Amino acid sequence: MKRDLQKILAQADQFVKEEMIPLEMHLHQHKSWAEVEAILAEKRQMVKAMGLWTPQIPEEYGGLGLSLHEHGQLMEVLGQTLFGLYAFNCQAPDAGNMEILIEFGTDEQKEKYLKPLLAGKTRSCFSMTEKDFAGSNPVHMGTTAIQDGDDYVINGHKWFTSSAEGAAFAIVMCISQEEASSPYARASQIIVPTDNPGFEHVRKISIMGHEGAGWASHSEVRYKDCRVPKSNLLGADGAGFAIAQTRLGPGRIHHCMRWIGICERAFRMMCQRAATRELSPGKPLASKQTIQNWIAESRAEIHAARLMVLDAAQKMDEKGDKAVRIEISVIKFYCAQVLQNVLDRAIQVHGALGISDDTPLAYWYSHERGGRIYDGADEVHKSRVARTILKEYGVRV
Amino acid sequence: MKRDLQKILAQADQFVKEEMIPLEMHLHQHKSWAEVEAILAEKRQMVKAMGLWTPQIPEEYGGLGLSLHEHGQLMEVLGQTLFGLYAFNCQAPDAGNMEILIEFGTDEQKEKYLKPLLAGKTRSCFSMTEKDFAGSNPVHMGTTAIQDGDDYVINGHKWFTSSAEGAAFAIVMCISQEEASSPYARASQIIVPTDNPGFEHVRKISIMGHEGAGWASHSEVRYKDCRVPKSNLLGADGAGFAIAQTRLGPGRIHHCMRWIGICERAFRMMCQRAATRELSPGKPLASKQTIQNWIAESRAEIHAARLMVLDAAQKMDEKGDKAVRIEISVIKFYCAQVLQNVLDRAIQVHGALGISDDTPLAYWYSHERGGRIYDGADEVHKSRVARTILKEYGVRV
Amino acid sequence: MKRDLQKILAQADQFVKEEMIPLEMHLHQHKSWAEVEAILAEKRQMVKAMGLWTPQIPEEYGGLGLSLHEHGQLMEVLGQTLFGLYAFNCQAPDAGNMEILIEFGTDEQKEKYLKPLLAGKTRSCFSMTEKDFAGSNPVHMGTTAIQDGDDYVINGHKWFTSSAEGAAFAIVMCISQEEASSPYARASQIIVPTDNPGFEHVRKISIMGHEGAGWASHSEVRYKDCRVPKSNLLGADGAGFAIAQTRLGPGRIHHCMRWIGICERAFRMMCQRAATRELSPGKPLASKQTIQNWIAESRAEIHAARLMVLDAAQKMDEKGDKAVRIEISVIKFYCAQVLQNVLDRAIQVHGALGISDDTPLAYWYSHERGGRIYDGADEVHKSRVARTILKEYGVRV
Amino acid sequence: MKRDLQKILAQADQFVKEEMIPLEMHLHQHKSWAEVEAILAEKRQMVKAMGLWTPQIPEEYGGLGLSLHEHGQLMEVLGQTLFGLYAFNCQAPDAGNMEILIEFGTDEQKEKYLKPLLAGKTRSCFSMTEKDFAGSNPVHMGTTAIQDGDDYVINGHKWFTSSAEGAAFAIVMCISQEEASSPYARASQIIVPTDNPGFEHVRKISIMGHEGAGWASHSEVRYKDCRVPKSNLLGADGAGFAIAQTRLGPGRIHHCMRWIGICERAFRMMCQRAATRELSPGKPLASKQTIQNWIAESRAEIHAARLMVLDAAQKMDEKGDKAVRIEISVIKFYCAQVLQNVLDRAIQVHGALGISDDTPLAYWYSHERGGRIYDGADEVHKSRVARTILKEYGVRV
Repeated sequence: MKRDLQKILAQADQFVKEEMIPLEMHLHQHKSWAEVEAILAEKRQMVKAMGLWTPQIPEEYGGLGLSLHEHGQLMEVLGQTLFGLYAFNCQAPDAGNMEILIEFGTDEQKEKYLKPLLAGKTRSCFSMTEKDFAGSNPVHMGTTAIQDGDDYVINGHKWFTSSAEGAAFAIVMCISQEEASSPYARASQIIVPTDNPGFEHVRKISIMGHEGAGWASHSEVRYKDCRVPKSNLLGADGAGFAIAQTRLGPGRIHHCMRWIGICERAFRMMCQRAATRELSPGKPLASKQTIQNWIAESRAEIHAARLMVLDAAQKMDEKGDKAVRIEISVIKFYCAQVLQNVLDRAIQVHGALGISDDTPLAYWYSHERGGRIYDGADEVHKSRVARTILKEYGVRV
Repeated sequence: MKRDLQKILAQADQFVKEEMIPLEMHLHQHKSWAEVEAILAEKRQMVKAMGLWTPQIPEEYGGLGLSLHEHGQLMEVLGQTLFGLYAFNCQAPDAGNMEILIEFGTDEQKEKYLKPLLAGKTRSCFSMTEKDFAGSNPVHMGTTAIQDGDDYVINGHKWFTSSAEGAAFAIVMCISQEEASSPYARASQIIVPTDNPGFEHVRKISIMGHEGAGWASHSEVRYKDCRVPKSNLLGADGAGFAIAQTRLGPGRIHHCMRWIGICERAFRMMCQRAATRELSPGKPLASKQTIQNWIAESRAEIHAARLMVLDAAQKMDEKGDKAVRIEISVIKFYCAQVLQNVLDRAIQVHGALGISDDTPLAYWYSHERGGRIYDGADEVHKSRVARTILKEYGVRV
Repeated sequence: MKRDLQKILAQADQFVKEEMIPLEMHLHQHKSWAEVEAILAEKRQMVKAMGLWTPQIPEEYGGLGLSLHEHGQLMEVLGQTLFGLYAFNCQAPDAGNMEILIEFGTDEQKEKYLKPLLAGKTRSCFSMTEKDFAGSNPVHMGTTAIQDGDDYVINGHKWFTSSAEGAAFAIVMCISQEEASSPYARASQIIVPTDNPGFEHVRKISIMGHEGAGWASHSEVRYKDCRVPKSNLLGADGAGFAIAQTRLGPGRIHHCMRWIGICERAFRMMCQRAATRELSPGKPLASKQTIQNWIAESRAEIHAARLMVLDAAQKMDEKGDKAVRIEISVIKFYCAQVLQNVLDRAIQVHGALGISDDTPLAYWYSHERGGRIYDGADEVHKSRVARTILKEYGVRV
Repeated sequence: MKRDLQKILAQADQFVKEEMIPLEMHLHQHKSWAEVEAILAEKRQMVKAMGLWTPQIPEEYGGLGLSLHEHGQLMEVLGQTLFGLYAFNCQAPDAGNMEILIEFGTDEQKEKYLKPLLAGKTRSCFSMTEKDFAGSNPVHMGTTAIQDGDDYVINGHKWFTSSAEGAAFAIVMCISQEEASSPYARASQIIVPTDNPGFEHVRKISIMGHEGAGWASHSEVRYKDCRVPKSNLLGADGAGFAIAQTRLGPGRIHHCMRWIGICERAFRMMCQRAATRELSPGKPLASKQTIQNWIAESRAEIHAARLMVLDAAQKMDEKGDKAVRIEISVIKFYCAQVLQNVLDRAIQVHGALGISDDTPLAYWYSHERGGRIYDGADEVHKSRVARTILKEYGVRV
């Protein structure tokens, strides 16, 4: 298996370098998602032809059945370029939605929603975050689902619903059991097709100056007396929080390894620039000790990040989510910071070129700033780590 | 005079808060510079009516004749909003060009180029940086001006020529005395009207995802056998570097105080958000110690930054540029870092809202990243400070 | 007055450089305080002869009557060397005790305790911190003073009572009004002569490997049924907290300016070392960019620190303590951090020599680590600053 | 084998916690090395009885034959307490000297110098660093060995010769082949018994206020016409640098894992203190978010450090030193910084107690500051990492 993985990684790396990187800035600057999607559709065909499609998905569902530890390594390779994950159909939020549907979906839901998603024929979104509630807290929220006959009637106001534009359906997190004694038993996850008249796409939220388009956009969405059949419920009524939890662990491994891919790319660009940019004839930028410090510190930080993420992935493969509660939070805040550090240094080494859109550095610098916020802000994860550790010392804080 | 300054600052502050801030995101998201310019033209009329137009310019030229120390304080006020400086006609690069024209321009140049600039009827640009040469080094560059009869013929390739789109003229830094023994005596500054057939506007450079427009854009420009009369030379032939130096000191005070204005605005937004955003009913974000740390650290850093810049401005007013060589470099790298720190914290406190374009934080975070690069990168200024200090210890490094 | 100050500073600087610095490591390595004291007694005579004795004390009490702003500048000069303040009789904790006695002491107390202190014939200590209570909180403490006839009977356990060994008396902070409705009205300050049988000197606390001796030591002290006449009370019964507050503001200016003196000395040593240490013939350490970065960053930070402390001192001179509540906390945590930064860099530039006791750097590095802890830990000051600011935003946290 | 290692680690951990930690501050504060040595001799007997003596040494020489990866883990356990390594006879500089003697020693040298060292009957020192030469550079030095008949005559001035006081012999690095074309072929390593009349023990160098004693001290040493037989040469004449290199890799793993042991101990102390120290009744220090941040950040950094060091150890076991040139430099500067961070935070959490010698934190804080200096300063390692990486980009800087 190990040897196969090395082959998969090598194939993917070659594909990324030959097919995706040369294209990425062109795609990035395109205004129309339709055109971008058309070009990416060809790349996706190539990935299918290579047999690397949906690598994170069990073989029985047509994927490669990679373990988290293996898929993590692949995510690093794909993370090197802007649309790498999309080309392999393992991009957020679809990958997480596939996971949920595989684990909790009914046969009908799988047929209707999972199948086209796995095939890359549709896209989906996940509607959790709300503007009026702090944090991405799956417990406190204002969106409700009221049972009415055979239906749920959903009302609520979500934002940062990623990839909503053009998505076939949303998985909506909403309160359906307001009276449940445990706050963790109040929420449900319900599938809402986006052509439902109660699904209102309010606007794409402009982020760091970009509205984005299609998959690469984030929307404000309103659910207005949005009526869906009860059969659209995922798992049990009230199980929304528990389902969300199963999604988070792997999601953080994916994000972190994708970031490491970005880091490695930025690192290579930094070294390349330092080696070739001359301060004066024969004296490259690389001769400056400050640049050397940045290269060494970046190498150290990226190395540390990778070892920690792969260590967490391996433990999660072996022992499950709960065994790595500390590790999962640690990698989230550590890797997000490393990503910011490395991008900041790479930009500084590139000078004015670094802030221009002639390289992907500026895009990553501005857009991946969100990495320290989404899926739990740094501060939330740090407190979580500390509180878990402090329990061993007899205090609950 | 002191009392007057307080009145000016108060007037400007009121204007910024009532007229500019409510408008800034609307203007920012506008695609067309023509529309933005029309709206801003009204605001400029109001500034003229208040008697605060071109405050940095000597009274004899129609300005307020503020000293650097005074103007610095005004820049902080104007820096609070995206188009604040523009509304007062003290924005870069025009302010610097006005300074050069006042100090070095001939009567003819003043009549033709300075007058409409002072009146706000035209805009201008400054063409120095070149893609193929490291740093914004006014000594090493590839652009040349060859004397040919009564003309100069300029050839070269510039980029990051800010505000070139729609500018009436460029001041071009070019090598005209290649054989001069001192490298500091090789460059000249020459005025080139942008309707000159040899002036080619290649493209607006997209920065952090924005191409920008008009004044708020940065261009790549090519000078192709660009022929201008010798009377377009500013000062003496070979004096380009010396002229650039006179421009830099005040420019850095301006930038730094503008950044402090941004910092204060971001600081207020951070405090406001912390005070009003509730984690749970009655428990504001401000109750978290990490947020409190950020508020305290930001207050300290901004306070330090302001005191240092005003100290440098006062010394420069009293003793001239050369007396504050260390201070000017210190404030450049210190303030640029403080700006980045404060914006980063303000964004984190805002969560997802912070990376959205619903506030100006995202724009500043991405676009002011350039502050650590332009007008001398942090590393250049640090080495300069150290080398100046080390001379006193008997070493030249 | 200003010109006189410059003269005072110049005199003091010359004295520090000629008389104190050459001696400091010799004194530092001495085991016996008696010998050190004898040598320092000579230096103190010289200071008296120069007319610079107790510069912080009003002229009517035999001092120079310097304002905080002026004395701050002198503290920087004296801070350059290990025993600089002691030589001028403006060292902690005596200087603070003098202040209290001048402001709150009765004629009898002044005669008995202040006079010999001003003359440098005795030393004193201040007994506040307790091992069993967090922080140096003048409100919560375990030491009590019970009225019994004409006496107070004090019981309690203090530690980090600086300079207790050999002190003539202690000012003890203790709870005397346990029932007072406001916690801030419970404590009193009472003078206890150290020859009182109820005063037990438990041990000198070894700090960073040093027990220290005499003035330069910190003790654990126990008060056991320690009986003193009521006439030993300072100010009103229950005014202990209020008196302590008056002491803190100036004390922080003093500490911060002393630290800046240390910083400047360490900075000069760093530059000197960088300029003279050769990596290879003709290539000084100063040629390394990392060293240059440290020099520039240290220059910036020290400059910022000084401007902020002097700004706070001036405001305190003009408007009193309460006007500078934020500034006083800001300088405390900012300067303590700058001190640590600069010392850390200076040590690194010195290599193995830096951790040896062949220079004072190692002493400062280890012993001034306490600066981030005493007189309010960094974290306490940061929260205080934030809370004060947040009140303007309508929240009390 | 793996299971055995777990048993060894558990035994060692129990020994450290039961036998060493309760004793450490007592030993630390002892003035006389003779007394300390006597107490430690008993502990060493216990270690021998447990069968854990000289665990890093091949079984054929009486050790446990642990691989680097295994020994690294043991070093973490032993690093938790001040004299842990000494108790197991795997302390620097003896461990390194044993390695050299095993690999390069003649039978006679082994009999005379190695055997008693392995038995713990003698101690040794390693004389490399010189005050007048920058860095611990085994190429540039002033100490020379001149052949004279059957002897070498050594002259030179060394400092920071650790553990020289009471050592039986020194291994001296000196220039014996001044004319060698490669600078790396100039030095030799020669054994000098300390009772040689040419071996002058100048002084113990006081470090961070401690002179130290015996094994725990660092000396200045002079070699004055110091005559030793040629048979005292280690390996070939001119092989000194090459021999030193073989010693460095494992030495860094040892140091780093020992530091991680210190980090884990300090981390536990920090958590324990946070959990038990009350700000007010029922409100532990651990409830403060700043403390929680420090706990989480420390956990992340220590975890990263350990994974990187063990990764390097494993690669070194498998592929040898040269394969891990980057990793070895990375762990050196990364771990030294983590150690400083964690100790700084642990001290701050302990408040005044943290700077006192009532815990080992103050000792580590001050004495392990050297970790960023010895065996190659941070800056040297960073440049080395960068230069190695940059070679792949075609530049030699």
